[in-house]
Amino acid sequence: MSEGGPVLRVAVLGCGSVGSQVVRLLQEQAEDLAARVGAPVELAGVAVRRIDAPREVEVPPGLLTTDAAGLVARDDVDLVVEVIGGIEPARSLILSALEHGASVVTANKALLAEDGPTLFEAAEKAGRDLYYEAAVAGAIPILRPLRESLAGDRVTRVLGIVNGTTNFILDKMDSTGAGFTESLEEAQELGYAEADPTADVEGFDAAAKAAILASLAFHTRVTASDVYREGIADVTAADVASAADIGSVVKLLAIAELNDDAVSVRVHPAMIPRSHPLASVREAYNAVFVESQAAGQLMFYGPGAGGAPTASAVLGDLVTVARNHLAGSRGVGESAYAQRAVLPMGETRTRYHVAIDVDDRAGVLATVAMAFSEHGVSIQTVRQEGRGADAQLVVVSHEATDAQLSATVEQLRGMEIVREVTSVMRVEGRDE
Amino acid sequence: MSEGGPVLRVAVLGCGSVGSQVVRLLQEQAEDLAARVGAPVELAGVAVRRIDAPREVEVPPGLLTTDAAGLVARDDVDLVVEVIGGIEPARSLILSALEHGASVVTANKALLAEDGPTLFEAAEKAGRDLYYEAAVAGAIPILRPLRESLAGDRVTRVLGIVNGTTNFILDKMDSTGAGFTESLEEAQELGYAEADPTADVEGFDAAAKAAILASLAFHTRVTASDVYREGIADVTAADVASAADIGSVVKLLAIAELNDDAVSVRVHPAMIPRSHPLASVREAYNAVFVESQAAGQLMFYGPGAGGAPTASAVLGDLVTVARNHLAGSRGVGESAYAQRAVLPMGETRTRYHVAIDVDDRAGVLATVAMAFSEHGVSIQTVRQEGRGADAQLVVVSHEATDAQLSATVEQLRGMEIVREVTSVMRVEGRDE
Ligand SMILES: NC(=O)c1ccc[n+]([C@@H]2O[C@H](COP(=O)([O-])OP(=O)(O)OC[C@H]3O[C@@H](n4cnc5c(N)ncnc54)[C@H](OP(=O)(O)O)[C@@H]3O)[C@@H](O)[C@H]2O)c1
Ligand SMILES: NC(=O)c1ccc[n+]([C@@H]2O[C@H](COP(=O)([O-])OP(=O)(O)OC[C@H]3O[C@@H](n4cnc5c(N)ncnc54)[C@H](OP(=O)(O)O)[C@@H]3O)[C@@H](O)[C@H]2O)c1
Repeated sequence: MSEGGPVLRVAVLGCGSVGSQVVRLLQEQAEDLAARVGAPVELAGVAVRRIDAPREVEVPPGLLTTDAAGLVARDDVDLVVEVIGGIEPARSLILSALEHGASVVTANKALLAEDGPTLFEAAEKAGRDLYYEAAVAGAIPILRPLRESLAGDRVTRVLGIVNGTTNFILDKMDSTGAGFTESLEEAQELGYAEADPTADVEGFDAAAKAAILASLAFHTRVTASDVYREGIADVTAADVASAADIGSVVKLLAIAELNDDAVSVRVHPAMIPRSHPLASVREAYNAVFVESQAAGQLMFYGPGAGGAPTASAVLGDLVTVARNHLAGSRGVGESAYAQRAVLPMGETRTRYHVAIDVDDRAGVLATVAMAFSEHGVSIQTVRQEGRGADAQLVVVSHEATDAQLSATVEQLRGMEIVREVTSVMRVEGRDE
Repeated sequence: MSEGGPVLRVAVLGCGSVGSQVVRLLQEQAEDLAARVGAPVELAGVAVRRIDAPREVEVPPGLLTTDAAGLVARDDVDLVVEVIGGIEPARSLILSALEHGASVVTANKALLAEDGPTLFEAAEKAGRDLYYEAAVAGAIPILRPLRESLAGDRVTRVLGIVNGTTNFILDKMDSTGAGFTESLEEAQELGYAEADPTADVEGFDAAAKAAILASLAFHTRVTASDVYREGIADVTAADVASAADIGSVVKLLAIAELNDDAVSVRVHPAMIPRSHPLASVREAYNAVFVESQAAGQLMFYGPGAGGAPTASAVLGDLVTVARNHLAGSRGVGESAYAQRAVLPMGETRTRYHVAIDVDDRAGVLATVAMAFSEHGVSIQTVRQEGRGADAQLVVVSHEATDAQLSATVEQLRGMEIVREVTSVMRVEGRDE
């Protein structure tokens, strides 16, 4: 690198789990980064809330500031990494950075899922890049492959395990037979779940990521509020055992599908066959399974969170954004949109697994089958287990609309011969 | 798109399995491609060997030619897709295309592994892109993630199942207990193996891909001739059963490791634990497992071959290359090299699994253990099975150099108490 050549100056907003690792990598990998970018990448400043909080990295003296707004407005800042999180002040800081001519990398799924289009338009207008690989599935390169590698293909479905906490809990339930509460407590003890686990357990985190994945995969605009969402708090040991009986496992899936020209985007627990690549995703790992017309079935697997893994994704974006900044060009943006309708959950086509305790009388099977057929739902398999007081029917349906399926279950619950509907769960990952 | 704006014109060299699907996608996806590139992408010509051979796609009249050299030299060709394969005329055509100002996409692993640097220098000199995602693991986006997503991280190891034919055969052997020959015949009947299976079975195809992966992962230059190579023809049903006994499965792995500043690049069958993400890669699927300092463990999975999947990867490259061509910029090239030494196989650190039929005498275990320790190899586990005439010892070593391990096995073979060494195989995919 010749002296006096260009230097890229980076402001890092936030120095917590992710930010501290970004700062560390910027220092440790300085030489490699310079070689890959084509110019040295220097730290211009690090914005935090509390100047004297303990940090996992040593920030060079004079670079820490509580004035994030002042930092992003500085003339000598070329690139801004936003790892504060949440909606404000993150949004205003990103918008200000773009207006002041910086290119931006962020890991902020909440903000992107709520208000991505505002940010993308600002980036477009400023002629700058806004990259956010780390916002979905942490370290796993999934947005870049969707956006660039599959740019000449047509993605038809995305199934993701995009929340490590819930995957850890469900994996525990599957491997130990424990219930939800017990498994959640174990996850909390081991640091895989927070004291208030709502965002993970109720599927809010996964829904934000589902919105981002659907937007990119189908070149449309989906926000978190468009996403149908069910968490895992109601998944029981009986559900997990029922899944095992049919050679399946329960996973919390973020699903985005293209049906004709509409998209279906949803987050809910589902049974998938153990032979499906997603079934072997254990513990807190994440994975995103992609189906496309030409490429077929792809899967991307890795750690979905953690300071260092997430920082790796941020740095990957930073190198691209820095190269573009230097060249005065932009990467593939979000501009080319087809605005597609989002299907309501009731109109989405799904399959159900239903286990029912029934009276062991002649004709019970026929009566239950009739309930399905009255709602236009055809049955794929039905298994009758036990005898007498313990008789149980396990039905797996063919595809129908979610409204038809849930109405069928409603009717079953009210039927005289049905003692209890012991497990209801959607089934995904079928071969077609 | 305003009329009279720029149009990108593509020459496709070769119209076989991959080329015909590239031509099909260029036609079917024309509208989406134009939106993503920012300009219409038009077919300028398709070069073949035989004008009137049957094709899997209808090539518009007048576009088929046998004059590939003339096609790439044409002024109105902006982008060249090379899907002929082999060294010549592919190399000369790519070099000519670059000299004439075109950007190039190729799927040609053989050429890249033999003479990549010549091509990269020509691209650099011409100021054009040379992309080749489809050359490794077909449809799976692996080169772009290695090159771009992990650009701020440090990759330490790559383990790949990059040959579908051999994975199909080994998977059959594992699931049915059949031998190599029988499984190869089944693969041939089902079209997973060619009539002459040498390139796949002997690991030549995997070695080419290993060279490309190592070069990209470690920013260095590795050619196919640097790659240590063992195929699967000697893998026996006994090896596969031995692997199963220790909860493992046999896979043909392409391995690239960074040890201090040297690289080890090799292709050989190895036992990996069934809990390893690569173990669940079935049939002819491919997967590449990547370990890096910050991101940790990532895996990329999908179809490693086939006309349409491979064409998907080609088109993904084509969109990027076309955007760069339009902007007058280049993507991340291969220029920033650290030239690293390639470790000879003997100096590479590996682990061995060795099964031995022994005389059932007192002191046998001690004698065998002594052979390992004399070569400086420490033993991780040893299991004694059977009694009398059927006594067997199964030893799994700790890491040592491959030379130490193979010398140990040599010595065992010559020992009086050893009736037969029934299985020797390297072990990979350890937790560290
Ligand atoms: N952690 C992960 O594994 C992970 C994975 C993927 C994506 N992400 C995303 O990455 C982002 C950061 O997550 P994190 O886990 O690193 O969060 P964190 O540990 O809570 O760190 C947040 C940082 O932001 C700083 N901050 C808060 N308010 C600020 C303000 N008004 N001005 C300036 N700085 C402010 C905090 O300063 P103080 O240190 O002074 O309090 C802290 O350093 C979030 O968008 C998250 O969704 C995280
Ligand atoms: N097939 C896969 O699944 C796959 C996967 C990954 C990568 N690849 C790579 O993709 C490339 C193409 O593979 P493929 O399977 O498509 O091969 P293929 O089916 O054998 O097709 C080769 C094509 O090249 C044409 N050709 C041969 N010599 C030529 C010459 N001198 N001038 C002009 N055209 C010539 C042939 O013309 P005719 O049709 O007239 O004979 C044919 O159309 C290879 O580098 C391969 O390694 C293939």
